Amino acid sequence: MKLEVWAIGKTSEAYLSEGIRAYQQKISHFIPFGYQELQESRQQKSADRSKTMKNQADLVHSRLTPEDHVVLLDEKGKQLNSVQFARYLNGFLISSHKRVVFLTGGAYGFHESVHNKYPEKLSLSSLTFPHDMVRLFLLEQIYRGCTILKNQPYHHI
Amino acid sequence: MKLEVWAIGKTSEAYLSEGIRAYQQKISHFIPFGYQELQESRQQKSADRSKTMKNQADLVHSRLTPEDHVVLLDEKGKQLNSVQFARYLNGFLISSHKRVVFLTGGAYGFHESVHNKYPEKLSLSSLTFPHDMVRLFLLEQIYRGCTILKNQPYHHI
Repeated sequence: MKLEVWAIGKTSEAYLSEGIRAYQQKISHFIPFGYQELQESRQQKSADRSKTMKNQADLVHSRLTPEDHVVLLDEKGKQLNSVQFARYLNGFLISSHKRVVFLTGGAYGFHESVHNKYPEKLSLSSLTFPHDMVRLFLLEQIYRGCTILKNQPYHHI
Repeated sequence: MKLEVWAIGKTSEAYLSEGIRAYQQKISHFIPFGYQELQESRQQKSADRSKTMKNQADLVHSRLTPEDHVVLLDEKGKQLNSVQFARYLNGFLISSHKRVVFLTGGAYGFHESVHNKYPEKLSLSSLTFPHDMVRLFLLEQIYRGCTILKNQPYHHI
């Protein structure tokens, strides 16, 4: 099983990119892992909010395959604590899925078609955070999950 | 009313410090705001976990005054969404408190004496995050709260 995090849109702040890169490397020491930022082409970029969301949805749908297991990061999703998250992650690691994709949305969240197609939703917090900061939180939590599963002394209880 | 965020221990990662500094400046455009990291002296630093927590608690108690209104950032605290957080913040802004201190703990959280003395607790997430990453989340959320209260176009609903 390969775990991937797909983020819609570029990370705007260099300091966030730095943190994301650091955790990306750390996670890769534990599990097959990929991180990518999906970007619309210049032609597709639009100032119109609903058009932007539709273009981003088209991009997501064109990249995912029916074999992928997809989890949307969404404020209204299921909330777990870090030990529960580690168990949730482990469920994927021992599953028959070839690829599990955690999808984090753009500034406006996901288009309706993405919500409808992928009902599994996970929330990192009931608070709203910048869409590119969420990436850092998610990667840190995946790394934490890996250390919990391996009984490494990163997570203090 | 002056809002302060006190964080126990140094921020270990430069990229987190950069983000914290950026939000610190942004918040200061809206409200009287201060951010500081409380550090034990070299003599006080200890490899022993309970001694470390006790020393950190002594440091906190010596700096706070009976007039301060203190909120602990704690996983077991109250969870709000961003609009509720903005209202909560506004409650302090229009209060008679001279100083409100949001206190974020060290790697092991707070000593019992800090928990007992300050019962008001706020949680940013049911997940555990690194104690120095929590600072970035908190400052972003305070900034978001300020923009919500001023009806500025930062928070998308």
